[in-house]
Amino acid sequence: MSIRVGIYGYGNLGRGVELACHQNADMEVVGVFTRRNPASVKTATGVSVYAADDVLAWKDKIDVMILCGGSSTDLPKQTPMLAQYFNVVDSFDTHANIPAHVAAVNAAAENAKKTATVSVGWDPGMFSLMRAYALSVLPDGQTYTFWGKGVSQGHSDAIRRIDGVQDAKQYTIPKEEALSAVRAGKCLELSTRDKHIRVCYVVAKEGADKEKIERTIVEMPNYFADYDTTVHFISQEELDTQHAGLPHGGLVIRTGKTGLDGEHKHAVEYRLQLDSNAEFTASVLVAYARATYRLNKEGAFGCKTVLDIPPAYLYAGDRDTLIADLL
Amino acid sequence: MSIRVGIYGYGNLGRGVELACHQNADMEVVGVFTRRNPASVKTATGVSVYAADDVLAWKDKIDVMILCGGSSTDLPKQTPMLAQYFNVVDSFDTHANIPAHVAAVNAAAENAKKTATVSVGWDPGMFSLMRAYALSVLPDGQTYTFWGKGVSQGHSDAIRRIDGVQDAKQYTIPKEEALSAVRAGKCLELSTRDKHIRVCYVVAKEGADKEKIERTIVEMPNYFADYDTTVHFISQEELDTQHAGLPHGGLVIRTGKTGLDGEHKHAVEYRLQLDSNAEFTASVLVAYARATYRLNKEGAFGCKTVLDIPPAYLYAGDRDTLIADLL
Repeated sequence: MSIRVGIYGYGNLGRGVELACHQNADMEVVGVFTRRNPASVKTATGVSVYAADDVLAWKDKIDVMILCGGSSTDLPKQTPMLAQYFNVVDSFDTHANIPAHVAAVNAAAENAKKTATVSVGWDPGMFSLMRAYALSVLPDGQTYTFWGKGVSQGHSDAIRRIDGVQDAKQYTIPKEEALSAVRAGKCLELSTRDKHIRVCYVVAKEGADKEKIERTIVEMPNYFADYDTTVHFISQEELDTQHAGLPHGGLVIRTGKTGLDGEHKHAVEYRLQLDSNAEFTASVLVAYARATYRLNKEGAFGCKTVLDIPPAYLYAGDRDTLIADLL
Repeated sequence: MSIRVGIYGYGNLGRGVELACHQNADMEVVGVFTRRNPASVKTATGVSVYAADDVLAWKDKIDVMILCGGSSTDLPKQTPMLAQYFNVVDSFDTHANIPAHVAAVNAAAENAKKTATVSVGWDPGMFSLMRAYALSVLPDGQTYTFWGKGVSQGHSDAIRRIDGVQDAKQYTIPKEEALSAVRAGKCLELSTRDKHIRVCYVVAKEGADKEKIERTIVEMPNYFADYDTTVHFISQEELDTQHAGLPHGGLVIRTGKTGLDGEHKHAVEYRLQLDSNAEFTASVLVAYARATYRLNKEGAFGCKTVLDIPPAYLYAGDRDTLIADLL
């Protein structure tokens, strides 16, 4: 019997979850829940759409609910609320607020004998796993996280709000010198701006002052002022054809030493190159939805994170196959 | 209180475990156990050495025994035997025999209410984890494992046994064309020999027939005949100074597709570059020794693998710190 999945929120991520379930024979999406008018939402694979307000009627018909809202206002409310009634998985990604989120969701889930897994995706998510494994295995060392090459939606939005800008896309790209230095085992203190450059593709409105737009971008506090920022003006057509997707990715690198006197150096590097940020995140969510359901079956209630879940729980097949084929 | 570690077998790996425990404040090596004359073994950090035959006297004085013998004859006997009396960790790496090894160790450990973790290291070990995570997250895709650049001790030994060879070292190196094709997302069926080249540094004895040695190497069945093999004759001095260590490493790469019609490609790449194969393996063993001890405390008996253990169990600190700092 399939694991019955609900999708709460249907933007890029929700659509990605629908498609990822389609790739996993043991997962079946039984409904999408939206705050919009359900009749206005068309799903990618024909899954039925229901009003978010009616979700509690599905209490006994859904094995795990995957929340696909945003981290700023949706998930802090929705995940603890839904964890009272469903096993839940979310991709809460405001790093600083994760401990509070875990605590709130844990209280709700434990009380209801439900299982929740929060902050699932690639960062937090797969990158967190890599940082934890590498730190545990090489305690004497340093970890670096690089993001990109990828589209930063917040930074793209910031450019679009500038007077005279018609459209824009901003790529965050790891700085080659920083990457090489880290790979060479140099122990450096690197801030986010030491590690990344920002490249902007901007469509100016007709007659707009391009020099002024460029100045406004590169001097924008917090977003661009402290970074090496490059601005390219291109046509809308070029933006639409050459920069249509939302690729992302990044690297986690840990360098460390072992030996009597730290004489042996080691480097661990984990790298993601993703054509679609949302679809990859969704694929991770679906694997952890499977794990969450299994944990609940075993009576492991409360709020988990990727750090708490044995890798074998993510895999659709059984443990013996995994041991024989992959170990 | 520290976790009290025993080391069973004291070659390169045993020494590495001793040094790795030295880097972890919560681990303390209480003894090395050897089949040699204990008086003849000098440990790196002054740990006491005892006869392997006396190990049972330490039944209640050791929290976890790390086995550092070989996979061909030592571990298949030693791990099930010692799991009757100790929590144990080993690096059993004969891939084809892992299921049988897990079963044998599980029977012994469950019966004795001990916990065992087997096949720990980097392959099997960290690479197995990466294969399992990537497969679970990207079910529609292909996984490739490359080894190297690194010294293959079995192949180096095979060269040393050739008439006229004084000393030798063989490096296994990933083939650049294969790596590039895989990274580009091409779905290829690649055998081990499609993915690797073999480079040999050989010291010939005085007056030896170098052409004959080279021919014997490149035509050696199983070891070299089916590979692109290069032979370099060098002096003993060059071998000793330029090729002294036992570096190793490799890559696990999975490429996969998502979307309605597989329109988005993704690549996950995990790479290790290790100055010392034995010391890195030992570092992984020590992190899993910590996890094994914790699992036993919780009443999780029997034989585990890296696929069964939550990442947080490897970390010396507590879960809350890990969530706050790394998630």
